Amino acid sequence: MIILGIDPGTATTGYGVIKVPDDILGREFKYDIELITYGNINTPKERLMQDRLHMIHSELTKIIEQYQPDQIACEMLFFGVNSRTAIMVGQARGVIMLSAAQYKIPFTDYTGLQVKLMVAGAGRADKTQVHEGVRKFLGTNGRKRRKLKANWKGGHLDDATDALAIAICHVLKMVNK
Amino acid sequence: MIILGIDPGTATTGYGVIKVPDDILGREFKYDIELITYGNINTPKERLMQDRLHMIHSELTKIIEQYQPDQIACEMLFFGVNSRTAIMVGQARGVIMLSAAQYKIPFTDYTGLQVKLMVAGAGRADKTQVHEGVRKFLGTNGRKRRKLKANWKGGHLDDATDALAIAICHVLKMVNK
Repeated sequence: MIILGIDPGTATTGYGVIKVPDDILGREFKYDIELITYGNINTPKERLMQDRLHMIHSELTKIIEQYQPDQIACEMLFFGVNSRTAIMVGQARGVIMLSAAQYKIPFTDYTGLQVKLMVAGAGRADKTQVHEGVRKFLGTNGRKRRKLKANWKGGHLDDATDALAIAICHVLKMVNK
Repeated sequence: MIILGIDPGTATTGYGVIKVPDDILGREFKYDIELITYGNINTPKERLMQDRLHMIHSELTKIIEQYQPDQIACEMLFFGVNSRTAIMVGQARGVIMLSAAQYKIPFTDYTGLQVKLMVAGAGRADKTQVHEGVRKFLGTNGRKRRKLKANWKGGHLDDATDALAIAICHVLKMVNK
């Protein structure tokens, strides 16, 4: 089963693709999550907003076509941000949810609190703890994982790592159901 | 020149299509706006949110294909609503803006305040005053306009009428530039 995790944003939408055994629900869970790919969809801030949303939709469509995810998990905003941020993230979420519907892929939302709790073990986990949690669950892919870890320096893969955390959270929720 | 006005929402997205002479910018403005069509895109609340957004995108695509608008004008939320509403309307706006970008149609935003000011002459205009303003600007289409007015009873075309007001606001802004 392929899971695509998404951390939505107009400037940067992070994505992460992981794979778990199809019979994961019937097995004892042993951190054997395979890291397939991860990255950022960046849109230039000097472009019109509708064109930036179009870029997110186009790039996401390519990722879905290439990796054929069975499930999409996306971060839901905490309902307490200011309304400007909420509208902007809502617009990005709109085109992401549309992509899921266009490919008939089940779509699930998680709050940042849920993701931190499931992946890092604490709702108030900081960035480093979330990274550590992601690294722990991706235990079996030596090379890709080391590369991911090396890329964490500088913080330019924070959104992609959050996207991986969201995908992992979705796996943990499925297993624990 | 064909203008499509949109009042975005997840449950109901109102739309209105009007036509003005192509050389409107060089003419004296005489309320000669032609009403082409108007209506609501309704989505059932028992459906999943991603499917409702897909319905909005599909219906809007049909409207764009049929009426070939040269411009799209959409209502921007006032930045003071609660973040839950802002996310929901943002998601609907996202797929609307995507449609505009996919068809390379210029997209413009107006706040409710701007629309009321331009169409009804007062930023605090109530619904009846906005309807009256819409009726005034659509002065030349006897039959369609009478039908529109008859449909105002019961309030089920409020979103479509707001969409017409947004389209008219866009015309007035273009003329006054």
